[in-house]
Amino acid sequence: MSYPSTIQKLIELFSKFPTVGPRTAARFVFYLLKSSKEEIEELINSISNLKKIVKICSFCFNPFEPSQVSSKFGEGKGEGDLCPICSNPSRDRNLLCIVEKETDLITIEKTKKYNGLYFILGGTVSSLRKADVEKLRIKELQERIKNHIELIKEIIVATNPTTEGEATTLYLERVLKPYNKRITRLGRGLPVGAELEYADEETLGSALEGRK
Amino acid sequence: MSYPSTIQKLIELFSKFPTVGPRTAARFVFYLLKSSKEEIEELINSISNLKKIVKICSFCFNPFEPSQVSSKFGEGKGEGDLCPICSNPSRDRNLLCIVEKETDLITIEKTKKYNGLYFILGGTVSSLRKADVEKLRIKELQERIKNHIELIKEIIVATNPTTEGEATTLYLERVLKPYNKRITRLGRGLPVGAELEYADEETLGSALEGRK
Amino acid sequence: MSYPSTIQKLIELFSKFPTVGPRTAARFVFYLLKSSKEEIEELINSISNLKKIVKICSFCFNPFEPSQVSSKFGEGKGEGDLCPICSNPSRDRNLLCIVEKETDLITIEKTKKYNGLYFILGGTVSSLRKADVEKLRIKELQERIKNHIELIKEIIVATNPTTEGEATTLYLERVLKPYNKRITRLGRGLPVGAELEYADEETLGSALEGRK
Amino acid sequence: MSYPSTIQKLIELFSKFPTVGPRTAARFVFYLLKSSKEEIEELINSISNLKKIVKICSFCFNPFEPSQVSSKFGEGKGEGDLCPICSNPSRDRNLLCIVEKETDLITIEKTKKYNGLYFILGGTVSSLRKADVEKLRIKELQERIKNHIELIKEIIVATNPTTEGEATTLYLERVLKPYNKRITRLGRGLPVGAELEYADEETLGSALEGRK
Repeated sequence: MSYPSTIQKLIELFSKFPTVGPRTAARFVFYLLKSSKEEIEELINSISNLKKIVKICSFCFNPFEPSQVSSKFGEGKGEGDLCPICSNPSRDRNLLCIVEKETDLITIEKTKKYNGLYFILGGTVSSLRKADVEKLRIKELQERIKNHIELIKEIIVATNPTTEGEATTLYLERVLKPYNKRITRLGRGLPVGAELEYADEETLGSALEGRK
Repeated sequence: MSYPSTIQKLIELFSKFPTVGPRTAARFVFYLLKSSKEEIEELINSISNLKKIVKICSFCFNPFEPSQVSSKFGEGKGEGDLCPICSNPSRDRNLLCIVEKETDLITIEKTKKYNGLYFILGGTVSSLRKADVEKLRIKELQERIKNHIELIKEIIVATNPTTEGEATTLYLERVLKPYNKRITRLGRGLPVGAELEYADEETLGSALEGRK
Repeated sequence: MSYPSTIQKLIELFSKFPTVGPRTAARFVFYLLKSSKEEIEELINSISNLKKIVKICSFCFNPFEPSQVSSKFGEGKGEGDLCPICSNPSRDRNLLCIVEKETDLITIEKTKKYNGLYFILGGTVSSLRKADVEKLRIKELQERIKNHIELIKEIIVATNPTTEGEATTLYLERVLKPYNKRITRLGRGLPVGAELEYADEETLGSALEGRK
Repeated sequence: MSYPSTIQKLIELFSKFPTVGPRTAARFVFYLLKSSKEEIEELINSISNLKKIVKICSFCFNPFEPSQVSSKFGEGKGEGDLCPICSNPSRDRNLLCIVEKETDLITIEKTKKYNGLYFILGGTVSSLRKADVEKLRIKELQERIKNHIELIKEIIVATNPTTEGEATTLYLERVLKPYNKRITRLGRGLPVGAELEYADEETLGSALEGRK
């Protein structure tokens, strides 16, 4: 016996969600079957609103709601396409931080230790093959830098310190070289909760060099 | 910085899904933001169809689509409210298998080793307190048994062999006693892939007694 | 810098212990370095006694201490080579249970559900290749059965229900066929604490068939 | 049935080893039972040699073998009590690195990024209660610093960035304050292989500040 087709269809759609397998997808469907009509409507409306209301920032590619942006900026000039960060006059325009994805931007914002602008690259590369590299927003990145060439003083490549993140960094350093800007990476070291004994040599070496 | 309210709202709704925390919920939202208009519509339609098309079986509480049930049965008699299993004339009506939830029914069907009917209890109890017990479909179960009292020969209590499942079984055995039917439980033993050395004494004892 | 050679040597010896890697082995050595002279001596004496005092049962290969065996048995007859189980007159000599290793024997004894004799096979096979099969105590097993051919009524093959355990069972069934004895296996089913939803089809099918 | 007393005794002794529970201890014993006489003797000799041959460095508490130390140093002067690191004239005596335990020293040595001396504290504290603090080699540490007060320029407190490690650092900073030395800690940041998204705010904040 298999599931009815309406249920099966929805299991398949939920199975495409990140981290979701068919078993979890089935649990989602049974959860919805037990939900009230009002809860279902609320969910449908929220999903539907997502594409209607949320815009993608024309500078950094961060999703935002136009209503979040103060009317002082962008009024009548189409600059409403900038997200609250990019349209915030108190952000430091000398700093550009390149992140892989939206959640990385949020994670950095939560530290409250960074006040510059961002650029969401849209992925990482595991090789420098053309097919891989074309998935990244390289042209858009180059354009942003050209257009703000005099403002930008430092470009922070905030990719993950993983193999893919490193490959991406190497590629970006090559792409960014012509602009003659200071290019930095996030500092390596021991994270909170780590144990020296299990740290790899590179991490511990960086932690020693970066002692203070 | 927090997420825009439309995103935040949807993160909250997805966080109510079983096994989903806020971080995974956020990934779901960014997945949807990257999906095409057509994909979003397909998802919304599928969710919307769920409540419209899927019915709950009036005997066993299994969700099903009326179109699944052959027109030979139930036509004009309101028996269209029976799921394909309950309306299948070749199923053995002498056997009633009580399961906790929908996915357990599907899991048992997949073994192709059971040809009787089911009853989805809707939960388990951790105690015999009234508030706990009232969440189960006990009245409906009693009604089903009364209405088929001459057909039913064996009632299989197929709860999980966990503490909660055992408490539920004890309660069901008390509830079912007056009907004077053979009440059985799933056999205990070593599961595929197990190692003797890590088996608990009760499981291994059952495996020894049930050797063949 | 590496460890001093005395420490390095002991790390290597401990690394041969089952489940122990070099990091854990190093922790063992530092633990010993911090132990008192008396504790070290106690450990050395216990290891040294192991081979001196513990004998291997000449029937089932179970390790035992001769002093465990009541003097009524074996006195002056070299039967002191039988372990307490094999020399216990109240054990059922009609039953022979073949286990993979010593700890499996202990695990079964702890259930108190088995009162027959054992035979420790000394391993499992992943294939029926000669090199694999030769590691098992097949000749010894055949000899035990031949010598007790009239007593033995049932041979329980209590290997793990894993791929290796199954291969071993298939091989044993072939080896044991000529003796025309009842050959049984441990019962399959749901172990204590399992959840139906995550049970494989074979296990759940066995649990259904073995219901009671 | 329980294990013979010789086996039981050894299981108990092995169960005291770090990370070892009774089940693993039993596997150790069966491993030894299967080992040859020569292997057992080798193990016993190695354990026995440990206390006879290995000395504890009179400066840093690092275990070492006197034969490791070149005869040029310490001959006839009792300075053979210094480990190869402490007696190596090319190590930088301006730097003193305080580590919790022996394996941490080895881990740092393996990075080849540190050329100073060490001091093994012998533990960490979870509180500043007297009973806790007395387990550490505080008096010995104070003595070492006093005796080399003019050489030491920087004291690196290389405890784990865990709650216990932090408590220990706070305590050490208080203890070391009177000596008016530069006191540093290992740098915080993202370790190799980390993902930004799962980094805590403090770690990511440090990684941003420590960018280069």
